[in-house]
Amino acid sequence: MHLKTSIKAIEYYLPPFVEVGSDLVADNPEWRIKDIESKTGILQRHISTTETSVDMGFFAARKILKKYDNADDIDLLILVTQSPLYVLPTSACILQDKLGLKTTCMAFDVNLGCSGFVYALAMCSSLIEAGVASQGLIVCSDTYTKYIESSDRTCRPIFSDGAAATLVVSDVFGSIGPFDLGTDGSGFDKLIVKSATKSNNLINSKLHMNGSAVFMFTMNMVPKSINKLLIKEGIMLTDVDAFIFHQASKLVLDNLIRRLELPKNKVLVNYHKVGNTVSASIPIALKQASDEGKIKEGNTIMLSGFGVGLSWGSCLIKFGQKI
Amino acid sequence: MHLKTSIKAIEYYLPPFVEVGSDLVADNPEWRIKDIESKTGILQRHISTTETSVDMGFFAARKILKKYDNADDIDLLILVTQSPLYVLPTSACILQDKLGLKTTCMAFDVNLGCSGFVYALAMCSSLIEAGVASQGLIVCSDTYTKYIESSDRTCRPIFSDGAAATLVVSDVFGSIGPFDLGTDGSGFDKLIVKSATKSNNLINSKLHMNGSAVFMFTMNMVPKSINKLLIKEGIMLTDVDAFIFHQASKLVLDNLIRRLELPKNKVLVNYHKVGNTVSASIPIALKQASDEGKIKEGNTIMLSGFGVGLSWGSCLIKFGQKI
Repeated sequence: MHLKTSIKAIEYYLPPFVEVGSDLVADNPEWRIKDIESKTGILQRHISTTETSVDMGFFAARKILKKYDNADDIDLLILVTQSPLYVLPTSACILQDKLGLKTTCMAFDVNLGCSGFVYALAMCSSLIEAGVASQGLIVCSDTYTKYIESSDRTCRPIFSDGAAATLVVSDVFGSIGPFDLGTDGSGFDKLIVKSATKSNNLINSKLHMNGSAVFMFTMNMVPKSINKLLIKEGIMLTDVDAFIFHQASKLVLDNLIRRLELPKNKVLVNYHKVGNTVSASIPIALKQASDEGKIKEGNTIMLSGFGVGLSWGSCLIKFGQKI
Repeated sequence: MHLKTSIKAIEYYLPPFVEVGSDLVADNPEWRIKDIESKTGILQRHISTTETSVDMGFFAARKILKKYDNADDIDLLILVTQSPLYVLPTSACILQDKLGLKTTCMAFDVNLGCSGFVYALAMCSSLIEAGVASQGLIVCSDTYTKYIESSDRTCRPIFSDGAAATLVVSDVFGSIGPFDLGTDGSGFDKLIVKSATKSNNLINSKLHMNGSAVFMFTMNMVPKSINKLLIKEGIMLTDVDAFIFHQASKLVLDNLIRRLELPKNKVLVNYHKVGNTVSASIPIALKQASDEGKIKEGNTIMLSGFGVGLSWGSCLIKFGQKI
């Protein structure tokens, strides 16, 4: 169903410190950086230096609060992160206090990666639709680069740090949904940072990605998910004005375009300069596409996130007004 | 509002290994255990040995799936935990696979503690009410004892490991809601396990609780929350058939009873033998109270969880049938 909610605003924060190909080659002289870049399409990555996930989320969300002066209207804060500050408490509590949101505000972290924004849209819209909350702020923020070995050729050329804040409100003009959400936990170890919260011996864990397994999962599940949503909504692929996929890499997006036979101009990408910012990637791409006039209110926009979990989430949205 | 959903079933798992007062004294001969026990009311704690949070959640949820043979009907799995197996992926994915739930099932971890069950009820009910999901399984599971120093007199006598699985379905006879949910992140460091996901140097962190600060927060917020809900629902305190608070300790519950002037027989407690099992404490107490015939379908039951975050959540529920 279409929830009677809409995205009213998106703002984002990308750390100013940037790494380009030559920085990677300086650490890894044997890397053929041009070959890597032609495959990933990613020419630079934002790297958090002093900024934590909460700091980045704060910088993004503060822009919305300044613009709308609505800190007292927000009663739901969802922080999508896999880079929390502590094992406990939930980092969303720290962000609630830092942003000056009222205490009668729900706040919790959701541990999801590249599918996390779409999942959070489902939660946020549903809580508003059901009358539990009235205005929700979804903050997606991750510092994955902290988990990556400098010599990891699979992960380092791809992942970038960043945060996006998305304001969701009741709105009969826009819409959020329907959704197609799923999980294949049999691939839990294909994209993983091991921790030792299950034992007393913490180890300094690093990100491990089985790139080909995640790629196969994506090519298998995402086209099915897109087609299921079109059937659910009773529309054709040509009725969709724009597609915003999780900005995994050029290789992944080119193959999705090919498999789904999508017109390239309808698939909005920003991975070249932004990189793969995990759960923040879809809202950052949405905002940039809106700023560039590539999407506007009333457009039917397909979102699809996929990756760590393994997990995927797709949905259709319409903006009720310019974000 | 009342969501048209209800708790259909609860099952739980408590690790068979139990620590009693003499075990604590063996490690800490200077402890006056009778004084501690008369304050906490907690006479034993369940300690996970080989069981992880996912294992315990699995044991609890499997009982529901066996009873109802409904693994294919569940399309939403919320794992409330602050003891995940990994930094990423979300442990809910591992549980989805282990339980044999279908891949068209949402699955995510929510990082919340003692308020987590009530928060998850809000999310689960709202997602069902909004048509995003049809049957939800809430699994609350924590192994806090792994974070506790053997000599910590504030935490060790209180916290216990355990898991509860709660099945939520559409149901016009029962109800879930209204809710009162809140956050005071200014107290984020009053109950904390520091980790080092914000740096590259992981440290072996332990639970720290400022007992008096958490106590003050609870006495300040919980009575207000209960009274707000009564006003929202338009009922009197005497209209509530049973109160199930987070089983923090005897000291906390006795003071809530005193402040709210509650009849003791309406406040159902199980802390003596179960201990404080964090987010699993309310559903375990609900199930035990139902099994003992102390609550039944149609009863108006007030739930209230509070603690780490700092965060609180209260709600009213009615069972549509015996759980």
